[in-house]
Amino acid sequence: MAPQIVFYDIPSTLPSKAWSPNTWKTRYALNFKGLAYKTIWLEYPDIEPLSRELGAAPTRNKPDGRPHYTLPMIHDPSTGAVVSDSTKIAEYLDATYPDTPRLMPAGTVGLHHSFEDAGYPLLAPLYPFGLPASNARLNPVSEAYFRSTREETWAKTLEDLTPKGEEDIAQWAKLKEGFGKMNEWIHASGEGSAYIMGDAPCYADIFIAGFVIWIKLVLPDKWEDMKLWHGGRWATLLRNLEKYEAVV
Amino acid sequence: MAPQIVFYDIPSTLPSKAWSPNTWKTRYALNFKGLAYKTIWLEYPDIEPLSRELGAAPTRNKPDGRPHYTLPMIHDPSTGAVVSDSTKIAEYLDATYPDTPRLMPAGTVGLHHSFEDAGYPLLAPLYPFGLPASNARLNPVSEAYFRSTREETWAKTLEDLTPKGEEDIAQWAKLKEGFGKMNEWIHASGEGSAYIMGDAPCYADIFIAGFVIWIKLVLPDKWEDMKLWHGGRWATLLRNLEKYEAVV
Repeated sequence: MAPQIVFYDIPSTLPSKAWSPNTWKTRYALNFKGLAYKTIWLEYPDIEPLSRELGAAPTRNKPDGRPHYTLPMIHDPSTGAVVSDSTKIAEYLDATYPDTPRLMPAGTVGLHHSFEDAGYPLLAPLYPFGLPASNARLNPVSEAYFRSTREETWAKTLEDLTPKGEEDIAQWAKLKEGFGKMNEWIHASGEGSAYIMGDAPCYADIFIAGFVIWIKLVLPDKWEDMKLWHGGRWATLLRNLEKYEAVV
Repeated sequence: MAPQIVFYDIPSTLPSKAWSPNTWKTRYALNFKGLAYKTIWLEYPDIEPLSRELGAAPTRNKPDGRPHYTLPMIHDPSTGAVVSDSTKIAEYLDATYPDTPRLMPAGTVGLHHSFEDAGYPLLAPLYPFGLPASNARLNPVSEAYFRSTREETWAKTLEDLTPKGEEDIAQWAKLKEGFGKMNEWIHASGEGSAYIMGDAPCYADIFIAGFVIWIKLVLPDKWEDMKLWHGGRWATLLRNLEKYEAVV
């Protein structure tokens, strides 16, 4: 039996610990492929030292040019590979485990990349809601790190970032519009399609689900509204992918 | 033998008459599928009356709410269908002629929609170059129509719209960046991939090619620069699709 893949995730005070939209994509991906793995929980300040120690590539550069290390990251002892970035991990898993269900079916890697570039701007209105709500669920050592880095990026306190009153209504409506666009894409693939490629989920659905479960977990009041959007499309998506939700 | 599809296009003073990026997508699509069709050339002021006469759906609404009719449009006498909008035409042709090569391979219609939503913003810097250059190639009756409608939309004359000096350099660089992103998508599908889905062209490649051939035809000086971009990717794309360029 192949040695287990190690999957690094960031813990929260939620019962399942898992919360991050980006690491959820990798958890869904590993469970979808049925690969043996174990989760190791890393607090924020420990991500960079361990990434450097394992020789992971930074996922991008910080505004000042220094390398930025992020989770998800996996370490696959059977190949020695250390891979960061949820999309790169998905591509690695498809390439390395060709006998498991494909996250990006043959020929669709390029289209998946364009999907992500179309999706991120639609999700932008979510961050002012999601970042403060996530911060409130982190353990103290991560909370301090998360707050200082995010407040630097956004040039305001997390409390000021949180939309209030009319801004809350407007931003939330803008997010609904963005999900409306994603709903159109799925709808375009067929009248009753549950997924963007039709009958079976692919990485694009997992990408969306990562954000939807983030909302469900850290913004439960907002979720009460969102689960009614677009004919219940997003609640159905999570229900359909529930079998890949296990935190192990 | 099935009766010929009628394909409506807008003529220019160019030798081949064809110029419009959107109608080029349909020409590439019809030729790619090997369907029998003939082109009927419509000057701009004739598009709306004929579309109404044939019962075509408007492709969108004008800012004032009135319906907006555009080309490409096809009329398929074998089904009676009249279809406008290059994407809808591609989907119609795939559905109606399942024994011809698919423009959007099985399962990829939703991903194609996301591809277009990612692609259009990247192409936005092209219009200030392409619109005035196209206008200069139209027959007088279309030229007057095109000028007045575009100048209303952009709230400036076509002469003022044309980027000059530093703005020319900056806008053209921005367009190159946009094509750089599309180059990354194609590259993601495989190291030596010619197309976004790998070895064979799909509608997404035809979508890009429609804009590239527009540049080649109406902006020949810019094309001299562009054909060197990204390892010659776009010149190669047109060369690969040359067999689907026939104007019939």
